[in-house]
Amino acid sequence: MSEIIRSLQQDLNEFGTDLHLIGGEKLNGRHPGEHPDNFGAGAMAQPATPEAAVAIVRWCIENNVPVVPQGGRTGLVGGGISRPGELILSTAKLDRIEAIDPLARTATVGAGVTLQALQEAAAEFGLTPGIDLAARGSATIGGMIATNAGGILAFRNGVMRHQVLGVEAVMPDGSLVSDLTRVLKVSAGPDIKQLLIGSEGAYGFVTRAVVKLESFNPIRATALVGVPDATSALALIGYFRAQPSLQLEGAELMWRNFFVDSARERSFEVDWLDEETPAVLLMEVSAASEENARSALEDGLAGLWEEHGLTSGIVAASLDQARRFWALREESDFIYRVQPGAPSFDVSVPPGALDAYVTGLKARLKAVDPGFDAYVYGHIADGNLHISVIGDGVAAADLKAAIEDAVYTSVAEAGGSFSAEHGVGTEKRRAYLTFGNSARRAVAQAIKAALDPKNLFNPGKVPYRAD
Amino acid sequence: MSEIIRSLQQDLNEFGTDLHLIGGEKLNGRHPGEHPDNFGAGAMAQPATPEAAVAIVRWCIENNVPVVPQGGRTGLVGGGISRPGELILSTAKLDRIEAIDPLARTATVGAGVTLQALQEAAAEFGLTPGIDLAARGSATIGGMIATNAGGILAFRNGVMRHQVLGVEAVMPDGSLVSDLTRVLKVSAGPDIKQLLIGSEGAYGFVTRAVVKLESFNPIRATALVGVPDATSALALIGYFRAQPSLQLEGAELMWRNFFVDSARERSFEVDWLDEETPAVLLMEVSAASEENARSALEDGLAGLWEEHGLTSGIVAASLDQARRFWALREESDFIYRVQPGAPSFDVSVPPGALDAYVTGLKARLKAVDPGFDAYVYGHIADGNLHISVIGDGVAAADLKAAIEDAVYTSVAEAGGSFSAEHGVGTEKRRAYLTFGNSARRAVAQAIKAALDPKNLFNPGKVPYRAD
Repeated sequence: MSEIIRSLQQDLNEFGTDLHLIGGEKLNGRHPGEHPDNFGAGAMAQPATPEAAVAIVRWCIENNVPVVPQGGRTGLVGGGISRPGELILSTAKLDRIEAIDPLARTATVGAGVTLQALQEAAAEFGLTPGIDLAARGSATIGGMIATNAGGILAFRNGVMRHQVLGVEAVMPDGSLVSDLTRVLKVSAGPDIKQLLIGSEGAYGFVTRAVVKLESFNPIRATALVGVPDATSALALIGYFRAQPSLQLEGAELMWRNFFVDSARERSFEVDWLDEETPAVLLMEVSAASEENARSALEDGLAGLWEEHGLTSGIVAASLDQARRFWALREESDFIYRVQPGAPSFDVSVPPGALDAYVTGLKARLKAVDPGFDAYVYGHIADGNLHISVIGDGVAAADLKAAIEDAVYTSVAEAGGSFSAEHGVGTEKRRAYLTFGNSARRAVAQAIKAALDPKNLFNPGKVPYRAD
Repeated sequence: MSEIIRSLQQDLNEFGTDLHLIGGEKLNGRHPGEHPDNFGAGAMAQPATPEAAVAIVRWCIENNVPVVPQGGRTGLVGGGISRPGELILSTAKLDRIEAIDPLARTATVGAGVTLQALQEAAAEFGLTPGIDLAARGSATIGGMIATNAGGILAFRNGVMRHQVLGVEAVMPDGSLVSDLTRVLKVSAGPDIKQLLIGSEGAYGFVTRAVVKLESFNPIRATALVGVPDATSALALIGYFRAQPSLQLEGAELMWRNFFVDSARERSFEVDWLDEETPAVLLMEVSAASEENARSALEDGLAGLWEEHGLTSGIVAASLDQARRFWALREESDFIYRVQPGAPSFDVSVPPGALDAYVTGLKARLKAVDPGFDAYVYGHIADGNLHISVIGDGVAAADLKAAIEDAVYTSVAEAGGSFSAEHGVGTEKRRAYLTFGNSARRAVAQAIKAALDPKNLFNPGKVPYRAD
């Protein structure tokens, strides 16, 4: 057992089992999540109450022990990795759904509640958190706040920041800011909780939150449609969003090589797909009845067919088939079987600039190495692209910077972001310093120095110093 | 001409007419807006470019001149009042709509663009900023960012924070943070622009912004419906929000005395209204055709009539009549003719707690003075109530604290906010210190000290020190 765990146990013994301290082999026996170094600290506390979390943080401040907040460890950029001498502070035991208020449409939850647990609890009232993402089974509300998670429904409901009404957090000075308002409108001075959202643990550890809920309509129709480019996909999206009798529930674009390879991995038949089609759009709509949803989707696509150069498409005949459509998009792990070590990225590009960006990206990658290509897919309605670079030698250390430059060039100029929803973590450090906004970085650093003078909260991550 | 204006003119003469300096009688001849002390400084700069704004701020830092940011001066809580020796920094000449991108659904605008100007420009593309409020003709985008404005559509689209994608601002150290991303998803380290939103000029002066645009459907039907209470109004709202073929475009509740007095002021016939009805709900929906909108509204109300105790109602027969319905709610100036000096408030209460709050409020006011009552009205779908206290002697200075206590008691406990959309300014100082969140206040003050050590940005306002 680590020295930190032993000392915590001894010094905070009045909290008893509320500390949930784990170290050594007991910790190493667990799955570390998406990054092998997440458990590097070898010492974890899982406070069961905000008060226990406060006591642990105060102890860490007193003893100069760095704190690494962790949620579901589904982060893809190494924002939760930890080193010996640090303490992992986990949301795992703050896992209670405290209240769901269907009239106010709010859920008050512990930071360790998973998205899926909240989705299931809200569904009993015909509601949904309004955010959905592939890692729903393990991603926690606290972690989603820390990274300002986005996902599938952001084009309609906004990102996590827009769905969070209240936050309770332990600040780096050991104080507890409990700002659990349950209303949409709060103009009551500087809104400190906004700093915690999307700051990857730099400014505090989230313990509880109030999440806004939205209407949930399970009556769906789902289609896969071959499209010539992102522009035509956006035209379809615009059309369906403007239909008063429908709600667009998802719009995910997969460029051809991603779609075909994902389909092959899942033994999904692609005979229906035109041989030349550059991309496939997954669309889901909801409506008042299944017949309405299906016919509106089919009629809408038929009406748009020629004008937008649609080539081929299928509409799911069953819920099971719709799930298989979604799996083609969401089960993207095959990438790392096809291409171990594939450098992966997550950028935002304003919709009007998407096709030019993807064309430019592929050209820039070929300039690095003529054998390089990319899988490109993502939440097209809000311009969020996931990119994995493939080809012989893509994982070579000496090409890392050149590949990053190929991906990030022109993103900021177009009004986009080098990181859309995955955060910065440790993997995107160079991008943050090279392609991020330097004035914004300087202010973030000044606030870090003011709130966390000992630099104890998730040190070595954002806000990185530029020097 | 003031000494400040003279010195600025001299020291920054390379900016020529881009400074737009005004002082003395030329300034005093203008309308000061909603607060008589807005022009107290007697000196105003209206930079025409972000670079001119930077130069002015740097000059102010060097010369220790406090800066008071002003937008359209429609603020109702004295957030823009200024004193001799300060410089008013106005957004007025930053009034260019730089670009509207209908595909990305974004508008890039100067901070001085009025909401109405942006609404009109967006309407040409079938779009809207997604925020609407009664002061649309004079409120500016910069001012709406500074106060995190809410208004009529917040229940659906969120508040200003949710519609702002990018912000450019001069920080209190004279640096320009130009973070004009045009995408929804940005998880690229701490999001500094969130600090500027809703901080009433404490952390910087907004020069430009990117605003997200939403679909606009002008095909409407509008009704006034007598309802027994807020709970029944919320049930109606819930019903109409859940109809897939409709969009709810407005839901404003007016308790009886407000409605009747407003109608009297505007010579609006209320014969149709049941004599006992406690409140009147203004509802507007949009649909695919006028007939659909109207029949869905009428049929929906008929179906809900008995269950929810509806007593009486009228549906607008024309656009002109619909506008008259809205004027009953929006032209609330009559309050100050009926009751000069009426203490006015703007609170958020979670929907489920609204009726108990209003009942308790009236009882608490009568406990202060049996002759006291309140006009209560507001954006009911998000729990935002506007309150004006009426009765003989309500403006007496020695009753100020007792009336405030009557209004604010139980708001925070219910999960609401003492200020919903008007901000803190100077008028809500006591509420901020007494009913606001003390831990949140302390963090706001620490950030203020870090970013603005000379306390030059809108001094004497938020974040107030508690001491």
